[in-house]
Amino acid sequence: MSGEDPEGADLQADAEAVTAANQRFYDAFERRDIDAMSDLWVHEDSSACTHPGWPTLTGWASIASSWATLLANTQHLQFILTNVRVRVNGDTGWVTCDENVLDGPGGSTVAACNVFVRSPGSLDGWKIVLHHGSVVHASLG
Amino acid sequence: MSGEDPEGADLQADAEAVTAANQRFYDAFERRDIDAMSDLWVHEDSSACTHPGWPTLTGWASIASSWATLLANTQHLQFILTNVRVRVNGDTGWVTCDENVLDGPGGSTVAACNVFVRSPGSLDGWKIVLHHGSVVHASLG
Repeated sequence: MSGEDPEGADLQADAEAVTAANQRFYDAFERRDIDAMSDLWVHEDSSACTHPGWPTLTGWASIASSWATLLANTQHLQFILTNVRVRVNGDTGWVTCDENVLDGPGGSTVAACNVFVRSPGSLDGWKIVLHHGSVVHASLG
Repeated sequence: MSGEDPEGADLQADAEAVTAANQRFYDAFERRDIDAMSDLWVHEDSSACTHPGWPTLTGWASIASSWATLLANTQHLQFILTNVRVRVNGDTGWVTCDENVLDGPGGSTVAACNVFVRSPGSLDGWKIVLHHGSVVHASLG
């Protein structure tokens, strides 16, 4: 296919790279690795992060502070991602997925969307610029 | 400025068009106008919508069905948008905002992000491809 449809092959490669960056985000979260988390983000005023139930934090300074708080927790944390869907449009990609979160004795499902921008030189070639998560209430939808 | 920095002027014009498309989304929601809402969306399998507390709906068919249900409600509904922030990256734009929702006797704040893709020929030149809203719990963040 790649010889006949280079544009399609590029899109596929981009989608795989965005998927890898998305997985890296959850790996850093699970490992509570603040340095890895920091490396994954675009450090700009326009970056945005909405943790479940939180107001939207804008700007890297506010977002970094929230991660420092969240990742300082030492409770066991594991993410099993399901329904991972990726779309790339030029130099922007976004992922929707379900975060099936196992933390301590309980568990919950968080619906998430993550927006990435192409960032040559970064680990996967893409950095996260927006994260939004919200707890799914099973009685709805 | 437009004569000296055409790229900056284009970016500004794109940001204004995305802001207009975002406002049109809430106008359609407030008026419970299913046709206007339908016109605003990209009708593709990759479109995604997460209403507060809901699981993520993917694909236009599922999303359209959810809007038909939500917009059929006849309770008075008003959105006052605050903290509207727009970013454009090529042919993709996204908005974060707070939806201050007045519905009937009560009110709530929903943190939202909306992703748009450039769509020549549509009303504002951009269509929405992802919406994610989650209720803000005042005790957090």
